[in-house]
Amino acid sequence: MIEENLAKRAKLVDEAIPKFLPITPPDELYHAMRHLLDAGGKRLRPTALLLAAEAVGGKPENLMPAALAVEFVHNFTLIHDDIMDEADLRRGLPTVHKKWGASKAIISGDALFSKAFEILSCAKSEPSQIVESIELLSKTSTDICEGQWMDMNFATRKDVTEEEYMRMVEKKTAVLFAAAVKIGAILSGANRDISRALWDFGRLTGVGFQIYDDVIDLITPEEILGKAQGGDIIEGKRTLIVIHSFSKGVTIEALGKSNATRSEVSTALTKLKESGSINYAMNKALNFVEEGKNALRVLPDSEAKMILIGLADYMIERKY
Amino acid sequence: MIEENLAKRAKLVDEAIPKFLPITPPDELYHAMRHLLDAGGKRLRPTALLLAAEAVGGKPENLMPAALAVEFVHNFTLIHDDIMDEADLRRGLPTVHKKWGASKAIISGDALFSKAFEILSCAKSEPSQIVESIELLSKTSTDICEGQWMDMNFATRKDVTEEEYMRMVEKKTAVLFAAAVKIGAILSGANRDISRALWDFGRLTGVGFQIYDDVIDLITPEEILGKAQGGDIIEGKRTLIVIHSFSKGVTIEALGKSNATRSEVSTALTKLKESGSINYAMNKALNFVEEGKNALRVLPDSEAKMILIGLADYMIERKY
Repeated sequence: MIEENLAKRAKLVDEAIPKFLPITPPDELYHAMRHLLDAGGKRLRPTALLLAAEAVGGKPENLMPAALAVEFVHNFTLIHDDIMDEADLRRGLPTVHKKWGASKAIISGDALFSKAFEILSCAKSEPSQIVESIELLSKTSTDICEGQWMDMNFATRKDVTEEEYMRMVEKKTAVLFAAAVKIGAILSGANRDISRALWDFGRLTGVGFQIYDDVIDLITPEEILGKAQGGDIIEGKRTLIVIHSFSKGVTIEALGKSNATRSEVSTALTKLKESGSINYAMNKALNFVEEGKNALRVLPDSEAKMILIGLADYMIERKY
Repeated sequence: MIEENLAKRAKLVDEAIPKFLPITPPDELYHAMRHLLDAGGKRLRPTALLLAAEAVGGKPENLMPAALAVEFVHNFTLIHDDIMDEADLRRGLPTVHKKWGASKAIISGDALFSKAFEILSCAKSEPSQIVESIELLSKTSTDICEGQWMDMNFATRKDVTEEEYMRMVEKKTAVLFAAAVKIGAILSGANRDISRALWDFGRLTGVGFQIYDDVIDLITPEEILGKAQGGDIIEGKRTLIVIHSFSKGVTIEALGKSNATRSEVSTALTKLKESGSINYAMNKALNFVEEGKNALRVLPDSEAKMILIGLADYMIERKY
């Protein structure tokens, strides 16, 4: 039921992409900009934006440009992140830089980023609401860059604190969810309390979602995950799980060891279970999502509000 | 006199940079974003924006955020272009990717780009004027990406037409000048005719400036240019000069030949002079700038208008 409601809105987003980002000369650039967008994706952010608008009594049918702007920003960050991570595959396709080379992937990301502001500035709303939305989306984009920068620096550090990790995750992942739902509220003329509640909802569930994702990467068997288990361990990622285990004095030999054997990874997993680090992170994730849902209490009850709550649950149920 | 007037405004821009882009955590990211900005530059675009505002009776003192937004976009394109061109030096300093690596240079450029929209959205103007300015700046940024993409594709083609070259130059270089002066007009409440005239001024002088720059790179002796003469020839750049010589059936052996000798470059130069290609491009450049200045006829006479005209002349007088 929730999934159907989400899928219905995701389909509207899918259909709007070619309309708002048609292939125009130089065609190849627009194909590169559309590459990941056309490969699918769950459209969680634009869907959440449309639902937020509906939940505050707005007209979601007018908010598709804003919804796409948020999805474009998300996809722009994926294109550039894939260059930095030297990732070969995304959504089952070669990444943009694999297909077009790093230089053209940089430009494609840049162009998608500027298109986001272009279509948001053409939204059918009050100019003051558009300005507020653009201010929020640009601040959010700066936050994402800050989060990505912090994350890159963490990889070479042993002393990352839980507080630093939480700040990084908030910037890198959560603020774009928060901005999405808040923009839905702003462009629908919602008052400050309601906008703020939606912002909190997006931020808290976004943080919960990222922590959950790190747990999933660790505990899901290869045959379900579709890739080797414990990839984050081998990459040396400072996830909340790893940071917690450090605080318990646990030593993870496989951490950041690119040639770690399956048995070494398995040993690491056992240690992380025994130290309570996996449970610790999982509980944190669930608590964040619960707090996020609670933030919506100030909203009047509606179908859209129920679907938003369902979306939050869906985000931490979608795998394993 | 003109140079003093330009320098005065450039200094105001210089002083505003640390105020609007302070070093905040993560500090290193902000140092990377400020790296090229702090290295100086002529600030032609923000200066032109402030002058345009003054020329239409606006208050330039309120337009510093917009002026900086345009300068940030310019610097963001430089950071990313330097990665693509694998350039080591810019404004006498190591480029951002030389100093911080390509990944961090990508993020620094992205963050500077989003900061541009952030400060423009906080400008002290009517919301409808801000929205119009943001729409223009974002469309312009998309144009710059299109121009950069076209330019990259030209390097591997032998059949680039003059028309294609002009379109590329307009997008890659001229529209940001045009946007700068038009935003100065929009945020000062100028009417459409005046805004349009300023746009034409920026576009035409911007095209003229880029063509002139290509001529200068070719004809300036090494001891004045500070680098080897004819670098564009060796790189194989499809400049207007080269495109014209192709149309005259001239063969340039040194074109795109990275190990071309000084004497081969010299032969190429002689051929380009004899085919009239250098004169052709130089005349085009001067005509564009003249047309650009003519576009300002609809503006009432003022000191700022005179300085804008002086700026146009300065752009094609500043070297050799």
